[in-house]
Amino acid sequence: MKNLEELFHHLLKDIYYAEKQIVKALPKMAKATDNAELKSAFEHHLDETKEQVDRLERVFEIIGKTPRGEKCPAILGLVEEGEEVIEKGEDSDVVDAGLLAGAQAVEHYEMSRYGTMIAWAEQLGYAKAVPLLEETLKEEKAADQKLSQIALSTVNRKAA
Amino acid sequence: MKNLEELFHHLLKDIYYAEKQIVKALPKMAKATDNAELKSAFEHHLDETKEQVDRLERVFEIIGKTPRGEKCPAILGLVEEGEEVIEKGEDSDVVDAGLLAGAQAVEHYEMSRYGTMIAWAEQLGYAKAVPLLEETLKEEKAADQKLSQIALSTVNRKAA
Repeated sequence: MKNLEELFHHLLKDIYYAEKQIVKALPKMAKATDNAELKSAFEHHLDETKEQVDRLERVFEIIGKTPRGEKCPAILGLVEEGEEVIEKGEDSDVVDAGLLAGAQAVEHYEMSRYGTMIAWAEQLGYAKAVPLLEETLKEEKAADQKLSQIALSTVNRKAA
Repeated sequence: MKNLEELFHHLLKDIYYAEKQIVKALPKMAKATDNAELKSAFEHHLDETKEQVDRLERVFEIIGKTPRGEKCPAILGLVEEGEEVIEKGEDSDVVDAGLLAGAQAVEHYEMSRYGTMIAWAEQLGYAKAVPLLEETLKEEKAADQKLSQIALSTVNRKAA
């Protein structure tokens, strides 16, 4: 990677791969919980994530590249932590608390990556990419806040 | 894991392992950059991280457990992404931009984990643990903001 254009392209492939992993993980997470509110939050975020994948494809188009993912070790580690909770949790309320926390870790990873991509897109003059990335960042923040609210209103208390 | 106490203990071991990985990674990151401001930010955060490890040991004590780490796949993935940037970057300014972004991804991971641990500690009545975890969360947020400021003031422009 010789310049910021190439680094931006690299990070775009990384987050594209990550979003696709999340599209695979969310249905498993929704299936693993009996908490109606949490299930609905995962399902709603699955719909959002599919749109986020489409938005990334538009960013690839803006920079003149073919949409292609590149293995992202961070998301694989984050997803693995979620799977561990489903496996090791011996009580459904505890699984809910762990899944919810794992989903928030994923949201935070994405917030950081979209924040970086917005700054780089601005620096590189990819003006049309900025609002697309900002829209997704807004959704990730809202998803994280929704999860915090569910944690505090029911999930943590039930798990305790 | 049968209840929230056990899940809290699990996450504590996970973040303890993660902080120790970060103590190992930061000197390599500081060494990999020629940008004085970024180097100093990494070195300053190394000192903070060592104190964060001490604080976690006090949390282990509060819950009556021996400090022990447990492999955290997420941090291993995040650190791997940082190493990839050092390997693949063909220009020092590009390496700086990638390292900085990678460090922010780590900060965000930690923010999410400390946020969760604070909520769980409150739920579980671990009152003495809460201010320790809050102090670290405050440092992680400040480290992230400092990095954003360095990115916008010099690093992104130089890499472009």
